[in-house]
Amino acid sequence: MTQATENADTAGPFGPRDAHDAFHVFDTTLRDGAQREGINLTVADKLTIARHLDEFGVGFIEGGWPGANPRDTEFFARAAEEITFKNAQLVAFGATRRAGAKAADDPQVNALLASGAPVITLVAKSHDRHVELALRTTLDENLAMIADTVAYLREQGRRVFVDCEHFFDGYRANPAYAKSVVRTAHEAGADVVILCDTNGGMLPAQVQAVVSTVLADTGARLGIHAQDDTGCAVANTLAAVDAGATHVQCTANGYGERVGNANLFPVVAALELKYGKRVLPEGSLKEMTRISHAIAEVVNLTPSTHQPYVGVSAFAHKAGLHASAIKVDPDLYQHIDPELVGNTMRMLVSDMAGRASVELKGKELGVDLGGDRALVGRVVERVKERELKGYTYEAADASFELLLREEVEGRARRYFRVESWRAIVEDLPDGTHANEATVKLWAKGERIVTTGEGNGPVNALDNALRRGLERIYPQLAKLELVDYKVRILEGRHGTESTTRVLISTSDGQGEWATVGVADNVIAASWQALEDAYTYGLLRAGVEPTE
Amino acid sequence: MTQATENADTAGPFGPRDAHDAFHVFDTTLRDGAQREGINLTVADKLTIARHLDEFGVGFIEGGWPGANPRDTEFFARAAEEITFKNAQLVAFGATRRAGAKAADDPQVNALLASGAPVITLVAKSHDRHVELALRTTLDENLAMIADTVAYLREQGRRVFVDCEHFFDGYRANPAYAKSVVRTAHEAGADVVILCDTNGGMLPAQVQAVVSTVLADTGARLGIHAQDDTGCAVANTLAAVDAGATHVQCTANGYGERVGNANLFPVVAALELKYGKRVLPEGSLKEMTRISHAIAEVVNLTPSTHQPYVGVSAFAHKAGLHASAIKVDPDLYQHIDPELVGNTMRMLVSDMAGRASVELKGKELGVDLGGDRALVGRVVERVKERELKGYTYEAADASFELLLREEVEGRARRYFRVESWRAIVEDLPDGTHANEATVKLWAKGERIVTTGEGNGPVNALDNALRRGLERIYPQLAKLELVDYKVRILEGRHGTESTTRVLISTSDGQGEWATVGVADNVIAASWQALEDAYTYGLLRAGVEPTE
Repeated sequence: MTQATENADTAGPFGPRDAHDAFHVFDTTLRDGAQREGINLTVADKLTIARHLDEFGVGFIEGGWPGANPRDTEFFARAAEEITFKNAQLVAFGATRRAGAKAADDPQVNALLASGAPVITLVAKSHDRHVELALRTTLDENLAMIADTVAYLREQGRRVFVDCEHFFDGYRANPAYAKSVVRTAHEAGADVVILCDTNGGMLPAQVQAVVSTVLADTGARLGIHAQDDTGCAVANTLAAVDAGATHVQCTANGYGERVGNANLFPVVAALELKYGKRVLPEGSLKEMTRISHAIAEVVNLTPSTHQPYVGVSAFAHKAGLHASAIKVDPDLYQHIDPELVGNTMRMLVSDMAGRASVELKGKELGVDLGGDRALVGRVVERVKERELKGYTYEAADASFELLLREEVEGRARRYFRVESWRAIVEDLPDGTHANEATVKLWAKGERIVTTGEGNGPVNALDNALRRGLERIYPQLAKLELVDYKVRILEGRHGTESTTRVLISTSDGQGEWATVGVADNVIAASWQALEDAYTYGLLRAGVEPTE
Repeated sequence: MTQATENADTAGPFGPRDAHDAFHVFDTTLRDGAQREGINLTVADKLTIARHLDEFGVGFIEGGWPGANPRDTEFFARAAEEITFKNAQLVAFGATRRAGAKAADDPQVNALLASGAPVITLVAKSHDRHVELALRTTLDENLAMIADTVAYLREQGRRVFVDCEHFFDGYRANPAYAKSVVRTAHEAGADVVILCDTNGGMLPAQVQAVVSTVLADTGARLGIHAQDDTGCAVANTLAAVDAGATHVQCTANGYGERVGNANLFPVVAALELKYGKRVLPEGSLKEMTRISHAIAEVVNLTPSTHQPYVGVSAFAHKAGLHASAIKVDPDLYQHIDPELVGNTMRMLVSDMAGRASVELKGKELGVDLGGDRALVGRVVERVKERELKGYTYEAADASFELLLREEVEGRARRYFRVESWRAIVEDLPDGTHANEATVKLWAKGERIVTTGEGNGPVNALDNALRRGLERIYPQLAKLELVDYKVRILEGRHGTESTTRVLISTSDGQGEWATVGVADNVIAASWQALEDAYTYGLLRAGVEPTE
């Protein structure tokens, strides 16, 4: 064993050898995940995501294609300097040597070595028609390209994995050739040969059958790389594991080209919680929800609310019918304890919800309803009555808490009292719009009249309200409206419908949602704004004054 | 066979008996799908979705729980009057009789009959602990409740399906009891017994094993109802089919409680395209993308861009590496031809509208594009450019036709020319609102200045515009705005986002939809209103004047 080979097996600049080499959790968010439409990562983004993934405990992080992409080259250079990996090894992705050349003379291959990554994934064609059409070489030369490149990189002391692109389609078209690709890679020294469902068209039963056969016929260590075009990427990954694959390639939140890749989070959760297989370091799974959301923030996509295990709705219960039974034994109504993946059960307050869900919700918000049946009954009545008018509290925790506190404390929290407001939208002859709002209110005994402008009437009202109150409540300066949703209720009444507005507000530390309902969008927005500011001041610990 | 039984088997008020009874595509969007956090359907929404699902060709549409929910009761009454189903039968969902009572005396059971639905799905507990904890009765009484209720509904001439709630968890806890529930339902006359993974914790291999065993041990016709908590609902549904289930319960776009239900679209696509099983009427699958997006619009959720088969990204390829190979043989790079599901391959990021779909759309609207490549190209360009700004023409046929005609005819249809407008919303000290709008416009050479009031600023603008134009165009008198939807685009920018408004207008004979996009909701509404009136006059055969 050369010194370089030892480097790949022990601690090196990219971190310790994966402690659980018997089973590989291989993440390709930074390479294949970045193919998702709408994702565009800077080097800094990639470094941040790599830190999150390492903290989460994946064994391998595929960082990109050094040499092919200057950003990826820079990523490998900076990762070597800036990150001390605790769990992961960094992997460089690249192609086999060009047809008719020597691997040692191929600049693309040498750029992979130059990245310093201890592990290299080579992509190889395994579908005969792709060899001819995209590589434009012979089937034999393709095998030679694989054998030579794997052998050369092994000689240079790197661990090598081989991705067999379009494997499942290739296997259907020409099973003998597809298998010869696996055998060639294996015999040349690839540690793992990954069968890729590149077009994503497979179903679990097919994957299981193919992986079983290839494993039996080649003896290679196999991995699986599944795309989600049939909506079965997670199941396909698990089917491959059932058939004997010991290496799974996934991306955080399932990001990837077209529909996406196998989602790392439900795959590792299934392996740990359903298979009882330890594939992450002790305690990692509890960080899953946080890591998922953190990575979504870095790539600048809203975290999917309905993602398995980690979505904010993943353990949300709506039906009031079951609320009393849930109180007795929550595990009858959830497939796992949400705390195992760092998520929490939520009871949604809705018109279907009864007393039990209001009590549970109170507990969740830290408001003690102390088994006071009359009080709980009053809250339930008010929620029902308001929901009949179009309010929804399942998506407006802050408005619900204000309502709850009003019943518990006997009076509403008030920091200001509004006398009146007015919003004007004007379409000018030159095609532009003028938006102006005036607010008249009282706070701490003072009458305040302010005017605000904005790019819309709600923005103008927000600016007027903020300007009016900021001097008295400087805490409001850091509040920011981060989301705004409008829903027209009773949709078949044209513009005479009731309008519901949901506003999300942030103070930099947390976010809360408020609701307003009125016969027009401006008035509904105003209500939600009032609640948003009131709740913001409550959160900041300010005493009510009105 | 009683007369009522015959009704269930032949054409009735709810439509013809499913032509493909050997395999059931059963949709529960309106019942279980509506449990999704953030979905709140009006009766009108439910009727619209039912029409879409029937057009798509599902065999059964579960409409809700009549009697338990006044909105659902109204839905069944109105569906009977307003919809003539082409493919689907309507299904009422409800519970077995109460413990210790007679089915015939149970008002909940009789409400199911009163709905008039020819098919009834009864939910039954099949997990022993749920019987004790949630139903609070004995295991034997639960079986009697199932047997009695099924038998009673059969006597009344209804077809009965039984949903075994928590079946898979129940089977793990007490397989003998779980199977006795299936056997009881089957022997009492239930046509299909559905095994439900209510908590969604199963994986495909488990589902397949349990369905196989239960099928062998009970001889009942089995169905599957899978929740997506492990991210495997589609695969679990297919695993059940592999094991012999012949009835799949799904929801459009996978809407449902927590993470959601098995998504109807990838399930039927897999059955039709991967299994070669005909489960929808001829030609339906090609409507899948359109139906998926239309239902998303009704429930007011952004269609998922990354949904398998129907997402706008589902067949999007980053141009470059494989571009030339894709041109030679696109099927090497996609698992199915996207046209099979009404979707399109995209090589570039932005556009939804390809030339083919514009031509097709033109044909659909009766506007001859006559194979004029330059003209089609100009339309595609304009659509692209407008869609980049946030317009959507999928849900706004009338605005698209106006755009198309403008390109074909070389100028826009204009019946009036707006100089300016202004809307004022005032919150008065007594808590009421005043909404007033002034519109200045030119029509047939005349300058018109009118003012309107309304219950909101858009309604006030509508009234002002109508009053101003009605004398000149009396055809406008019969126009009515029947639907109004607001969507905030780029959701994370608070009230400074772009706003899209969709308006549906009726003239008593037909309905058309128009779109407006602007930096504020009033200006966006105004655009959609202008298009709505213009299109109404075009429909009425009025010659443009401006």
